[in-house]
Amino acid sequence: MFGTDFRPIFPGNSYPFRLHDSMFRQTIQKQGRLEQREKWGTLAENCSIIGTYAQTELGHGSFLRGLETTAEYDVRTREFILNSPSITASKFWPGGLGKTANHCVVMARLKMSGRDCGMQSFIVPIRDMETHNPLPGVTVGDIGPKFGYAAMDNGFLSLNKVRVPRENMLMRYSQVLEDGTFIFPKNDRLVYGSMTLIRTSIVGSCGRALAKAATIATRYSAVRRQSEIASKGGEVQVIDFQTQQHKLFTQIASAYALMNAGKFAANLYNQVSAKIEDGQLEDLPVLHALTAALKAFSSWEMASGIEQCRMACGGHGYLLASGIPQIYEDMVPACTYEGENTVMCLQTARFLNKCQEATNRGEKLPPLAHFLQAAKGNRKSGLSSSMDLTQLVAAYEFRAATASAEANSRLKAQRAEGRSEADAWNNSTQLLVQAALAFSHAFTVRAFVESVQNANFHPNVKSVMTQLATLYALTGILRYCGDFTKGGYMSDSQIRLVQDRFFDLLTALRPNAVALVDAFDFPDQVLGSALGRWDGNVYEAIMETARKSTLNKSQVHPAFYKYQKPFMDSFKAQAKL
Amino acid sequence: MFGTDFRPIFPGNSYPFRLHDSMFRQTIQKQGRLEQREKWGTLAENCSIIGTYAQTELGHGSFLRGLETTAEYDVRTREFILNSPSITASKFWPGGLGKTANHCVVMARLKMSGRDCGMQSFIVPIRDMETHNPLPGVTVGDIGPKFGYAAMDNGFLSLNKVRVPRENMLMRYSQVLEDGTFIFPKNDRLVYGSMTLIRTSIVGSCGRALAKAATIATRYSAVRRQSEIASKGGEVQVIDFQTQQHKLFTQIASAYALMNAGKFAANLYNQVSAKIEDGQLEDLPVLHALTAALKAFSSWEMASGIEQCRMACGGHGYLLASGIPQIYEDMVPACTYEGENTVMCLQTARFLNKCQEATNRGEKLPPLAHFLQAAKGNRKSGLSSSMDLTQLVAAYEFRAATASAEANSRLKAQRAEGRSEADAWNNSTQLLVQAALAFSHAFTVRAFVESVQNANFHPNVKSVMTQLATLYALTGILRYCGDFTKGGYMSDSQIRLVQDRFFDLLTALRPNAVALVDAFDFPDQVLGSALGRWDGNVYEAIMETARKSTLNKSQVHPAFYKYQKPFMDSFKAQAKL
Repeated sequence: MFGTDFRPIFPGNSYPFRLHDSMFRQTIQKQGRLEQREKWGTLAENCSIIGTYAQTELGHGSFLRGLETTAEYDVRTREFILNSPSITASKFWPGGLGKTANHCVVMARLKMSGRDCGMQSFIVPIRDMETHNPLPGVTVGDIGPKFGYAAMDNGFLSLNKVRVPRENMLMRYSQVLEDGTFIFPKNDRLVYGSMTLIRTSIVGSCGRALAKAATIATRYSAVRRQSEIASKGGEVQVIDFQTQQHKLFTQIASAYALMNAGKFAANLYNQVSAKIEDGQLEDLPVLHALTAALKAFSSWEMASGIEQCRMACGGHGYLLASGIPQIYEDMVPACTYEGENTVMCLQTARFLNKCQEATNRGEKLPPLAHFLQAAKGNRKSGLSSSMDLTQLVAAYEFRAATASAEANSRLKAQRAEGRSEADAWNNSTQLLVQAALAFSHAFTVRAFVESVQNANFHPNVKSVMTQLATLYALTGILRYCGDFTKGGYMSDSQIRLVQDRFFDLLTALRPNAVALVDAFDFPDQVLGSALGRWDGNVYEAIMETARKSTLNKSQVHPAFYKYQKPFMDSFKAQAKL
Repeated sequence: MFGTDFRPIFPGNSYPFRLHDSMFRQTIQKQGRLEQREKWGTLAENCSIIGTYAQTELGHGSFLRGLETTAEYDVRTREFILNSPSITASKFWPGGLGKTANHCVVMARLKMSGRDCGMQSFIVPIRDMETHNPLPGVTVGDIGPKFGYAAMDNGFLSLNKVRVPRENMLMRYSQVLEDGTFIFPKNDRLVYGSMTLIRTSIVGSCGRALAKAATIATRYSAVRRQSEIASKGGEVQVIDFQTQQHKLFTQIASAYALMNAGKFAANLYNQVSAKIEDGQLEDLPVLHALTAALKAFSSWEMASGIEQCRMACGGHGYLLASGIPQIYEDMVPACTYEGENTVMCLQTARFLNKCQEATNRGEKLPPLAHFLQAAKGNRKSGLSSSMDLTQLVAAYEFRAATASAEANSRLKAQRAEGRSEADAWNNSTQLLVQAALAFSHAFTVRAFVESVQNANFHPNVKSVMTQLATLYALTGILRYCGDFTKGGYMSDSQIRLVQDRFFDLLTALRPNAVALVDAFDFPDQVLGSALGRWDGNVYEAIMETARKSTLNKSQVHPAFYKYQKPFMDSFKAQAKL
């Protein structure tokens, strides 16, 4: 067995074997029967075959049931016939599909003598193992340039009645017997499991991506001097400006918060997984609900946070040498892949809404949703000038409960006005999305606060981490202060207290800001940034990178002779006429 | 005279002659004396010389006084000696500087026998007119890849005691006589003029960039079908989802709002300019204050708005073929160039703070700041369910006045606590920035509302534009609702009304959404988008672009033979050992 983990070689998200390493091999392991895992798993592990995973189609993404690719079973030859019936049925986007993969897991709608047997996975050879040419019936190619991901050959694939043996359908759950009998899976909820795991891992990845950007911007801000605070006082480190502290420290806090939320979600996943191994599936919907919106919340927070860090670097943040544009391009797709964020929020909202209706009926809720009930009795915030972390968690749970109740009440009002259930739901979705995000935000605050309260920190560290967790919670209260003053939960003067405390915390955190990002412990090679270097030799590094620009290979670029000189000469010629 | 407007050939912001066309020629016209304008202006016009404008240095940006490049006058030879005394003094970023320009306007600190005579502009030849090689003492090159702007050779420039004749200093305002006498400018506030004009034009450009992204996303959302609203009802146009309407329609409204704000600011500029021609300079500070924060507000709104439109296109929004990534990369630098946004907000805040203090003293304010006083008497919103536009403007002016008063009161409190004026200011800057943005937002709402109220529209158009302006105003009230409920100005139930009306407006605008973006009237060539095509043939266009990917020139990419096959073979070889 040979290791094929290419990630250390390719620090970004973008390299042609990435889906071979992850989705292709994982799908075989998760959905293949023992003999399939042995056969295909070993071939993949040894790089005897290079695969990818093709689900998304040109015309179809989030809505799995909308996929058009079909697989029909031919009982005579014991083969499946895979087909793309239209242009919109072409598989589109899978990484490594364009020029690299010679095999592909294809998601297709299984039809058994006309009967729809749902989406199934098939291993389809797409390129000749000797010549690498596309096989007969296979049209495959690269989809062209994207926002980032330059090193990845995302591809398209159209199948024209391509036949594969019956053994190429991954049959751990659904099965097709030789005679064409279709056996339904015992429990299709298990499919949730791996989606949930991937989403959980995205939460932490978002935190780490934001941590990288915050590291770069914070270190640079300690080196960069620009403008004066006191007139003729000399130019100061930009990190000394309150506005810069606001940009940086809120994102440092957010990075810690998201990394923690990822850890908490992963723990929950492990607990639920262990139960599932014992056949207990009841926690699966809760886990699914948590991870769906949390993935959306963390990726949106990360995306805007990275751009804020980049812009906090002024002009030099636009240099690819700053490293931040690549972090953004590598990670912003997390808002869309593995479940489009708005769709994710609505999945969580369905859970919240069910909980809301169960609450209204006085039923008991799963622990994750307890706050929907707990908050009912408490309509005034006990927030005092101490800004106790537990009070802050309560405030976020109040906000989440209120948002959830408001969405539910709009839904009921829409029904009461005589709208169909579908239209009532659609007309309430924006509030439902907001409720799911408020829920995720509350979870993230709670995770951050509990991790700080329970950690075995040195008292000095505990004090700084408490400041940071407080800053994180106060940031959201100021940003969404209308949600917290609703119904008089917080008063204007409490918000004023929050504001004062927030600004005090910026000052308090200033001496530890660089240490807080150093603690993320990214080596220079991983940051890949001239601005975020550990040694602070920013300007030398920028100039060194600039000198290496390919345009500087010659003093006079060939385009001068080819275009610019003739162009300028043409004006001279005209002037002489 | 030959036209050298390359913009129709290069629809983006990025081409090597762009700064020649704009800043280089404009600076000569604005800052040159008649004989300089005739000499250099004509050479530039005829492309006999190709120039750029070099102000920003590697270590210095927004803070003009921090620039390190020096110019010393040598009275013996009647020359200026330009010098970059350190690595951070290197000019860095000017477009076209790297490989294209042979001349450069260099901003440098003039020293006359050791005396500091401020920043002056010098025309410096940097490349040989025949060979295009850098001239002696000149180190020049490209700065390497950036976020976007691939077609632009942004450059660096270091000058080692480079001499230019006395005539090369642009002397419309400051002058150096042959004998070394320095004559101070009569009025340096006039320098504001062109900065103000550029910022004004950025406001409208931001609106147009967002309009392009909104056009693409809206048209695509009318073609794309994804998921069901009613179960088994079939996949619907994604524009029918409330959440999608929220993403799109708020950005359509924002694009109209910013384009209008740009128009209003340009009118104001023209009025003030006309007065300046008559020697009346008193409105210049107001104009400067308005355009500074308005540039910041509009570029930030645009940047997040474009990303929202891109993400509203799902996966295909990440394709460069969608056209949106290029719009973002072309325009997001507007947050940083021509005055970094936070710095801009603080310039406006200084004006607002002065007005605030004048108000506290009971003085009369310039018309643009009247709202700071008017709002004082009215501490309850008259907002009724009709959502009258005039009431909405009042609400925004209340918010701006409150934000401005809060910032001022924090500043006073900081002083009262004994902090120095500089520290008190720094500790209040985040609130001051928020006040400047609230001021810009109020201006933008007023401009939109007045343009709709005063336009000579067909009644049907007026009705839709009224809906759109209302939607724009309500969007901000919901986003910053805590600002509007402060001190009981609006009640929770008024916010609820706003919310209901907002959702009703999304439904009401749905039938006209495509027409509203068609009205922006961008030809397909300008949008450059497979998703935003006027004819709606989205999927064919995406596939056509994909097929043209350079990776598809051969079925098997050369990298297969060079890397992938040997790599796979190496595993086979190991397996045999």
